[in-house]
Amino acid sequence: MSPPTGLRDQAAITGIGETLHCRGTDKSALELTLEASMAAIQDAGLTPKNIDGIISYSSGTVTAEDLMTNFGTEDLRFSATTPLGGASAVAALQCAAMAVSTGVATHVLIPLGRAGYSGTRIGNRIGRMQQFRVVAEFESPIGANAPAQFYAPMARRHMELYGTTSEQFAQVAVTMRNHAILNDNALMQTPLTVDMHHASRMIADPFRLLDCCLESDGGAAVVISAAERAQDMPSPTVLLSGMAVGHPDSPSTITQRPDMTRLGLAKAAAHAFAMAGVRHDEIDVAEIYDCFTYTVICQLEDLGFCDKGEGGAFVEHDRLSLHGALPTNTHGGLLSQAHVAGLNHVVELVRQLRGDGGLRQVTNAVVGLVTGYGDLGDGSIAIMRAA
Amino acid sequence: MSPPTGLRDQAAITGIGETLHCRGTDKSALELTLEASMAAIQDAGLTPKNIDGIISYSSGTVTAEDLMTNFGTEDLRFSATTPLGGASAVAALQCAAMAVSTGVATHVLIPLGRAGYSGTRIGNRIGRMQQFRVVAEFESPIGANAPAQFYAPMARRHMELYGTTSEQFAQVAVTMRNHAILNDNALMQTPLTVDMHHASRMIADPFRLLDCCLESDGGAAVVISAAERAQDMPSPTVLLSGMAVGHPDSPSTITQRPDMTRLGLAKAAAHAFAMAGVRHDEIDVAEIYDCFTYTVICQLEDLGFCDKGEGGAFVEHDRLSLHGALPTNTHGGLLSQAHVAGLNHVVELVRQLRGDGGLRQVTNAVVGLVTGYGDLGDGSIAIMRAA
Repeated sequence: MSPPTGLRDQAAITGIGETLHCRGTDKSALELTLEASMAAIQDAGLTPKNIDGIISYSSGTVTAEDLMTNFGTEDLRFSATTPLGGASAVAALQCAAMAVSTGVATHVLIPLGRAGYSGTRIGNRIGRMQQFRVVAEFESPIGANAPAQFYAPMARRHMELYGTTSEQFAQVAVTMRNHAILNDNALMQTPLTVDMHHASRMIADPFRLLDCCLESDGGAAVVISAAERAQDMPSPTVLLSGMAVGHPDSPSTITQRPDMTRLGLAKAAAHAFAMAGVRHDEIDVAEIYDCFTYTVICQLEDLGFCDKGEGGAFVEHDRLSLHGALPTNTHGGLLSQAHVAGLNHVVELVRQLRGDGGLRQVTNAVVGLVTGYGDLGDGSIAIMRAA
Repeated sequence: MSPPTGLRDQAAITGIGETLHCRGTDKSALELTLEASMAAIQDAGLTPKNIDGIISYSSGTVTAEDLMTNFGTEDLRFSATTPLGGASAVAALQCAAMAVSTGVATHVLIPLGRAGYSGTRIGNRIGRMQQFRVVAEFESPIGANAPAQFYAPMARRHMELYGTTSEQFAQVAVTMRNHAILNDNALMQTPLTVDMHHASRMIADPFRLLDCCLESDGGAAVVISAAERAQDMPSPTVLLSGMAVGHPDSPSTITQRPDMTRLGLAKAAAHAFAMAGVRHDEIDVAEIYDCFTYTVICQLEDLGFCDKGEGGAFVEHDRLSLHGALPTNTHGGLLSQAHVAGLNHVVELVRQLRGDGGLRQVTNAVVGLVTGYGDLGDGSIAIMRAA
């Protein structure tokens, strides 16, 4: 049996790309996907014909065939999807690392573009979650359809069990906004206060508007290559040191599981930290999937930065700010940069570990992590380090 | 860079399972999937809780979450899909081999169940192919919607270019039927003649009814484990020696590509044979995706068993029969056993390489291959050998 360190440092992120993020575009999801992909491919010092693996976004409409057609790809050796909703992008890193480390592909592209404001909005996609049988049986009949309606009872349960407060939710929103203001390509540029958070309208109790992530138009993409090949490529090498995916107990439902506050990430994090061989206090920067303010708090616990129930206290005292103990969502996150289903978090982590964070650069960022969070509490994580 | 032999003999198929195939069932696709999965898991000497990877069928309705819920899975470490239509099942073997050889998962289940007769029939799923943009632009507007309508012009083109005949198509149908009659779990048990083929009604010129595969209800499943682990498992070890996936030129269309008769399998086969390090004359048995009689002829060429255009002649003189030079679709195939999107071909190849083929066992079958064929000409291949 391969040791748990099997994939440690076998693959690297060799290219990153991002479009302008906006709310209002004439571009299709395909155009946004291609634009981000071209940026990532050029960043890797490659041309589209060098791409021989593609992991397209399972919740999107852009297929590997679309990219091949537009790229003129002659020999695509690997394609797959990792259908885990918001956990898909980070799960795709693991799958890409498998492909390049086994020689199945040389350069794997992970692209993701969404006309998430000008096209179909996730908040309006009623019935989307009914693909999951148990959701269709238990959650849909009581009126839970949009994401905020699924996450609200989880957050409320955490408040009831552990005394977590709306002030703590607000602290997450304020910190993400502070980071966004330092990011030219972040949508939200107005400073935010806890009072402004509390004054925003209620969406699904306990979530106010400013607890919810953005709906936006844009794209992101990354290129994964074998680590030994990365050394000869133009960008500073950022290695994938530990990756894992995990699912909660009772994976097919949200409200019927034994503990709504325990996520698949708890299982994934243990595996990823073991694979990477790093300790929590070695993490210099974290990009945590923030579809709602609450999900950051819950994931910090499941990541092991604090015990279950202590996430609310953990985010106080600016601990997530650029100069705090755990700088988090340095780009502004889904809450204040843009919503590219977390692939923007991957791009940002690489940027930080390259030292290209500009005004928002975390000092001496060498090791970092990024998480994904899927519809049903699925979790994904990648721990990376600058080589 | 990893050598092209990277995945050679790193993984094994350690469990196979199949339901009864029928036309008429009260069971859902999920029930059929679970039934086949349980058979494969038991064949591997495992319990459902041992499964920590799942590659579900991208064109189906059964998700990894469905299986986890029914299995009581506690720690699923890997899930993905390989969305290549009929090439998906064999492409999944490659993906599963990547997962177990890198230690990401220990035992990966590839399940596939379809109520393909009693539920939605593929021949009726008008609009299914419109997910592909170029198909929606070029093929759908001229009335091509069902699979027979997409494959017919390819077959006709082959006939025009190379003189391939309906008699040669019939020869494929007759041979598959002869094999099905030796298989208790094959739907078609009536001997077939070339005349009967020619008398069957026209579906989409040049395809008659007996050129077309079955629509049926049933399921199949396999378990993939690391090769070193397979040695300690109960079933005879069948190693995955060479695997690859390939796409045709102009991957997003059928009728607009430069050569309709050249498939992605041509690229995949070259890679897979190189990975496995075997010659064509070492292949003892072949299970070739036979959605239509013609596709067997075309794939034999792209596999390299004969030159392009010679496939028609190749299938004459009983060359594909059990005692011919290349025994093919020993279970009866999609044409005469059942339609499980080619995962039944994988199960059959393992059975042959274990020596469990019963009345239809190929003598001294040690090395074999299985192919998949996706909607747009995508190809997948796995070369296996008995350890």
